[in-house]
Amino acid sequence: MTTVTGRPDGDSLLPDAERLAADLADLSTFSESGEPGWTRQIFSDPYRASRGWVADRMRAAGLETHVDPAGNVVGRLPGRDRSKPVLMTGSHTDTVHGGGRFDGIVGVLSAIEVARRLRETGATLESDLVVVDFLGEEANTFGISCVGSRAVAGLLTPEHLDRVDDSGRRLGDVMTAFGLDPQGALDQAWAPGSVHGYVELHVEQGPLLERSGHRIGVVTAIAGIERLLVQFTGRADHAGTMPMTGRHDALVAAAQAVLTVEREGCGAPVHGVSTTGRIESSPGALNVVPDKARIWAELRSIDAPWLSGAKRRVVEQIAADAEARGVSTLIEWLNDQDPVACARSMQDRIGAAADSLGYAWEAVPSGAGHDAAHLAHLGPMGMIFLPSVGGRSHVPEELSEPADIAAGAHVLAHTLVRLDRDTA
Amino acid sequence: MTTVTGRPDGDSLLPDAERLAADLADLSTFSESGEPGWTRQIFSDPYRASRGWVADRMRAAGLETHVDPAGNVVGRLPGRDRSKPVLMTGSHTDTVHGGGRFDGIVGVLSAIEVARRLRETGATLESDLVVVDFLGEEANTFGISCVGSRAVAGLLTPEHLDRVDDSGRRLGDVMTAFGLDPQGALDQAWAPGSVHGYVELHVEQGPLLERSGHRIGVVTAIAGIERLLVQFTGRADHAGTMPMTGRHDALVAAAQAVLTVEREGCGAPVHGVSTTGRIESSPGALNVVPDKARIWAELRSIDAPWLSGAKRRVVEQIAADAEARGVSTLIEWLNDQDPVACARSMQDRIGAAADSLGYAWEAVPSGAGHDAAHLAHLGPMGMIFLPSVGGRSHVPEELSEPADIAAGAHVLAHTLVRLDRDTA
Repeated sequence: MTTVTGRPDGDSLLPDAERLAADLADLSTFSESGEPGWTRQIFSDPYRASRGWVADRMRAAGLETHVDPAGNVVGRLPGRDRSKPVLMTGSHTDTVHGGGRFDGIVGVLSAIEVARRLRETGATLESDLVVVDFLGEEANTFGISCVGSRAVAGLLTPEHLDRVDDSGRRLGDVMTAFGLDPQGALDQAWAPGSVHGYVELHVEQGPLLERSGHRIGVVTAIAGIERLLVQFTGRADHAGTMPMTGRHDALVAAAQAVLTVEREGCGAPVHGVSTTGRIESSPGALNVVPDKARIWAELRSIDAPWLSGAKRRVVEQIAADAEARGVSTLIEWLNDQDPVACARSMQDRIGAAADSLGYAWEAVPSGAGHDAAHLAHLGPMGMIFLPSVGGRSHVPEELSEPADIAAGAHVLAHTLVRLDRDTA
Repeated sequence: MTTVTGRPDGDSLLPDAERLAADLADLSTFSESGEPGWTRQIFSDPYRASRGWVADRMRAAGLETHVDPAGNVVGRLPGRDRSKPVLMTGSHTDTVHGGGRFDGIVGVLSAIEVARRLRETGATLESDLVVVDFLGEEANTFGISCVGSRAVAGLLTPEHLDRVDDSGRRLGDVMTAFGLDPQGALDQAWAPGSVHGYVELHVEQGPLLERSGHRIGVVTAIAGIERLLVQFTGRADHAGTMPMTGRHDALVAAAQAVLTVEREGCGAPVHGVSTTGRIESSPGALNVVPDKARIWAELRSIDAPWLSGAKRRVVEQIAADAEARGVSTLIEWLNDQDPVACARSMQDRIGAAADSLGYAWEAVPSGAGHDAAHLAHLGPMGMIFLPSVGGRSHVPEELSEPADIAAGAHVLAHTLVRLDRDTA
C-alpha cells in the first residue's frame, strides 16, 4: 500500500478538544425546563430544536446533511469513490428522563469533529463517511428504544408504529406530529453490505475503565437483555386480624422475587447483571395485606447460554416461592435482545489505533444497549468506550473528562482511517 | 335483687334477624359510585346521606337523636333514672376504600335493634342507653382514625384538626364543609365516669371464631399498633453497566426490609402480626438501579413488651442490612397506639350472657383497632365479636351470616341488661 498525497493520516487527526467541549456545552443547553438533570427526551420540543442545531453543526463541518424519514440527522462527507460501501459512525443525542450530557452525545459530536479535522487537514477518504445522529435511542414511553437505528437497519416494524403509550397515543401518529414519515421510516432500510463498517464512540457508563486506569475500552460485545414483568396475586386481608399463617401477601412474594433477581446477577459470570427497576403493590393501605404486586426486572449479559439459564432459574424460583405463600404469579417476558458481538476485525482495528496513538486500552463488554447493536445487521460493527467518572450514567452527575473525550475521538478518527484504507 | 315488672329480661330480647338483615341491606345502598366494593368513606356524599338514614332509624326506634359537634349520630333511650351514668354501645358506619357491608355497621344497626326490642317488649332500663354511630372510624387521608370516638373521649386535639392531606386540605376545614363544628368537637368530651360501661359488637374481621366454631368472641384486649415509614436512599446507576458489587440499590434494601418485617410477625407470640402495606421506589425505569424506596409497615400485638421489643429489633435489622449495601435509612415512627385491655368485669358479663343464651364462646384478642379503645377512657369497656366468613374484612367479599349477627345482637342485649342491673 503506497502513501498518497491528501490521504488522511490518523495521527494528524488529533481533535480540537476545546471545540469539542464547547459543542458539548452548547448542546446541553437544549433541555426540558422543569425536568431534572439534562432531560431531552424523544419528541420533546428541546429535542426538536437540538436536532436543528446538530444538522447545522454537520453542515458547518462540510457534511451533505439531511433528515431521513425516521428522523435521523444524516451527514455525509464525500469520499474519492462514492460508489463504495460507506464508513458509518454516530450515536444519539436524546437522553433519559433526568439524564446527563454525555451518553450518546459524545459519539455524535466526536463524529462531527472527526469530519471537521478531515476537512481541516485537507484529507480525503476513499469512501464516503456517514455521520448519523440516530433518533430516540433511549427507551421511550412506547417501550421501544433505538427508533432511528432500527429504521436504518430494517428492524423497525409496523407493530412498533402501532404501539400505544399510557396516554393512548400511537407511536406512528406521534412521529407524524413530530414532522416525520413513519411509512417512509419502514421503507428506508439500508441494504446489508452497504456499510463497510460502523464504529461508535460512547461513554462506558460503568466503572471498569476508571478502575483499571485505561483510557480506551475496546468493546467485545453488547449485552443481551431479558426483561420480565411478574404479576403477583394474593389475597387482601385486614392487616390486624389475619394471622401470619393465614396470609397470601403479594408484596412479600414480590419482595422475595426482588432478592431472587439480585441473587442471580450476583452469581453471574463477569459483568452479568440483574436488576428490578420498578415495583408496585396495591391497595397500598397500611392496614391491608396487599393482594397485588408487580415487579419489572431485567437480566443482562454478553453470555447467551448464561442468560437463557438465568431466565429459566429466575422464573422457576419466583413462581415456587410465591406458590409456597399461596400467591399466584403471571410472568411475561416483555422483550429480549440477544447479545451482539463486535466484529473481530473492528476490535483489532480499534486496539491497533489506540496502540499507535499511545492510549492504554482494555477489552470490555457493553452492559448497555446501543444503536450499534442494530447497525451490526448492515456490516462489521465496533464500539469504542471512554471512561465515565464514578461509572455514573443516566443521572445528571454523568461526567466524562474532556481529555478522555478527546482521546476517544482521536481513536475514532484513527479507526475510521484504518477502516478506509482497508477499502482502498 | 328483686324482679320488677317492666324490667327487661335479656332472654326475651331475641333480635328480629330479618329486620336487622334488611337494615344492613338498606344501609349498603349508600355507596360511592365508581368505587370498588361498598365504599362509603368519611366526608363522602353517600356517607353524609347515610347518616341521615341512620338518624331516622334511631328516631323510629324511639331514641332521642341528635348529631353532636363531631358528627356522631347519638340516640338516647331514656332509663328510669336519667341522672345515672349511662350505658353506651355503638360502632361506626364508614368503610375503607373497597370495603364491605359489615365492619362497624353490624355494631350500630344491632344497637338500634336492641333499643327497638327493649321498646317492643315494654322494658325500661334503669339507666339511659346511648347508641352512637361514631364519625369516621377508619383511617382517613389525614392519617387519623376514630375521629368521632376520640372527640367523645376527649382525645381529639387541635393538632388533629390542623393536619393536611395530600390535596392540601385541612381536617378542621373539611369537617366544617361537612357541616360539623370542629371547635365544638374539641370541647364536647364526656366526663370520665359518665359512662357506666361501653359494649361494642363487631365482626371479628379474622378467622379465629370460624376456625374454632365458636359463635361469640369475648374480646380480651385491643392490639397496640406501631407504624413506621422507612426511607431508603441509595444511588441511581445504569442497570446494564454498574456491576452488582458496585451498587447501592435502594429497592433491594427495601425488599429485604419487607421480609424482615414479615419475619418479626411470624416469630410473634400468638396473634402478633406485622405487615408492609405499601412500597414505592424511584425512578422506576427498567434500566436504572433504583436510588430511592419507601416502605410503610406496622406491627400489632396485645402484648406491649413484645411490641416494644419488636419495634427495636425491626429497625435495627433494617438499618444494618441497608448499611451493608451502602444504602442509608431514615426511619420515622408515624403513630403508635398502646394495647387496650377490655375490663375484666365486662369480659365476665359478656361470657355469662353467651352462656345463659347457649352460645359457645371463646376469649380472643382484637387485632384491629376500634372506637372502643377510646371509649375505655370514660368507663369499663368490653367488646363482642361474631364470626367473619373466611376471616375476610376490608374487602368487598366481607361477610357475616345473618344467624351469627342475630346471635351477636342477642348477646349485646343481654350484656347491656346485665350491666344495667349492676347499676340498680
